[in-house]
Amino acid sequence: MAKGRVAIVGYGNIGRFALDALLEAPDLEPAGVVRRRAERDESMPDRIPVVTDPKELGRVDAALLCVPTRAVPETAERYLAAGVNTVDSFDLHGDELVALRRRLDGAAKARGCVAVVAAGWDPGTDSVVRALLEAMAPRGITYTNFGPGVSMGHSTVVRALEGVADAVSLTVPMGTGVHRRLVYVELEPGASLDAVRERILADPYFKNDDTRVIQVPSVRDLVDVGHGVRIERKGVSGRTHNQRFAFDMRINNPALTAQVMVAAARASLRLAPGAYTMLEIPAADLLPGDKEDLIRRLV
Amino acid sequence: MAKGRVAIVGYGNIGRFALDALLEAPDLEPAGVVRRRAERDESMPDRIPVVTDPKELGRVDAALLCVPTRAVPETAERYLAAGVNTVDSFDLHGDELVALRRRLDGAAKARGCVAVVAAGWDPGTDSVVRALLEAMAPRGITYTNFGPGVSMGHSTVVRALEGVADAVSLTVPMGTGVHRRLVYVELEPGASLDAVRERILADPYFKNDDTRVIQVPSVRDLVDVGHGVRIERKGVSGRTHNQRFAFDMRINNPALTAQVMVAAARASLRLAPGAYTMLEIPAADLLPGDKEDLIRRLV
Repeated sequence: MAKGRVAIVGYGNIGRFALDALLEAPDLEPAGVVRRRAERDESMPDRIPVVTDPKELGRVDAALLCVPTRAVPETAERYLAAGVNTVDSFDLHGDELVALRRRLDGAAKARGCVAVVAAGWDPGTDSVVRALLEAMAPRGITYTNFGPGVSMGHSTVVRALEGVADAVSLTVPMGTGVHRRLVYVELEPGASLDAVRERILADPYFKNDDTRVIQVPSVRDLVDVGHGVRIERKGVSGRTHNQRFAFDMRINNPALTAQVMVAAARASLRLAPGAYTMLEIPAADLLPGDKEDLIRRLV
Repeated sequence: MAKGRVAIVGYGNIGRFALDALLEAPDLEPAGVVRRRAERDESMPDRIPVVTDPKELGRVDAALLCVPTRAVPETAERYLAAGVNTVDSFDLHGDELVALRRRLDGAAKARGCVAVVAAGWDPGTDSVVRALLEAMAPRGITYTNFGPGVSMGHSTVVRALEGVADAVSLTVPMGTGVHRRLVYVELEPGASLDAVRERILADPYFKNDDTRVIQVPSVRDLVDVGHGVRIERKGVSGRTHNQRFAFDMRINNPALTAQVMVAAARASLRLAPGAYTMLEIPAADLLPGDKEDLIRRLV
């Protein structure tokens, strides 16, 4: 069977790992990389085309949108309008995610395409775990404990503040879904640590958490993309209390995100037109190979 | 919206907990209990009919087959032929499960029905976890570590042996998917412990495991239906090694099995005709309520 041809749109943090995952997939192949400028990266094999216009890549079955969350809606619509399935790792939850799914559902169905939204690990595979735990014990409380690991969103917010040359914000789990934020900052010459700390603590991203601000000479020396999560639920199956569940992982963050996106791209080739979150995709569709073989091996 | 009416077929270990789970479900209701003899149990609310023929229950949308695994194929075919969706917790893996799914797929499609097979926790929700972990890290090894907890299958095998009055077999996890079996036996008068031990160790259910046989005065005093599992995977996302995952649960075994069957019955009312394992069912279909609300809350 012909391999599914998948384009990588954006070649930052996630895009590089998406190329790895596509090169390792038995049933998919990279159609190429789409960037604003057609610059090659030394890590790319020569046979991977780098283009600015996806039309130069020939047949493309699906596009992995490795772009910032705010750029996802328009980028996805553009690819869907061209008849290409899309996969994004949109990282907002709640109403904004529901709105994206609605918007792309229309765009996808209009062209007989599939859009998989929020296909990372949280939102993404963690969401599936939360749903499974609720199916197993419908009453109870689920706690999602992140980290320790870098929060890209929080780091970006701090970097934009006056007096900050560079920053990284770590999320540290304190149990029962409560987190501490450790913000490491490199100050601009003449900036005051106290003033920067005040700006950070006043920001809506930080003001509800236990936030500590620490000045360091080099932020770059601290950065590691390892991350983790522990999802815990204690709940009731039927009328039987004290059912206990935990899901724990310790992972390279962009590598896992990219791998989930590749699995979602595979699923997109099997689903009916429309937009899907990971909750709406059968686990078997994420994996290569014959369905009965998967059942024999994994069920 | 009218509640889905679900019959409970068999009222043993699992059936009792299935009634609890149905009584707690917001969108389903118990149509009644089907038994070989229409005997009531003191735990049943008066309004729950107990019958020998499911036709006496009026409209039935789905049947939970709370019967032994060997009785599943024929019972399921009978209900599917009558136009009723079925859910079973068939507990064999591999070829036997694939054969059951094929057989019920035909029977279900012939009547526009849905059969969900192997809807327990292993096979069942554990299978979904194993598939998710493989989607997240396609290369690597998954270990499923069961227990400590009673193995119904192993206990039944020992009870059937000559010289055994009662027995219970515990599965004890020794790590990396290796298990010890602790077999507690109550002997028949005059039976020899050494002879019983030899029979147990020669049985194919035990001969490949580290099996210890222990004589006790009362097996009944030892029985607790608590069980657990720890699924571990260390693998590779793309080309990034050392991705680590663990899923752990400590649960009442029949209560969880029954709850998963009820969630699968709900899904059966939403799926296209055919037979499904849990791998083939989107997680959202297992849960009550509006899909966008689920996405807003869980993704």
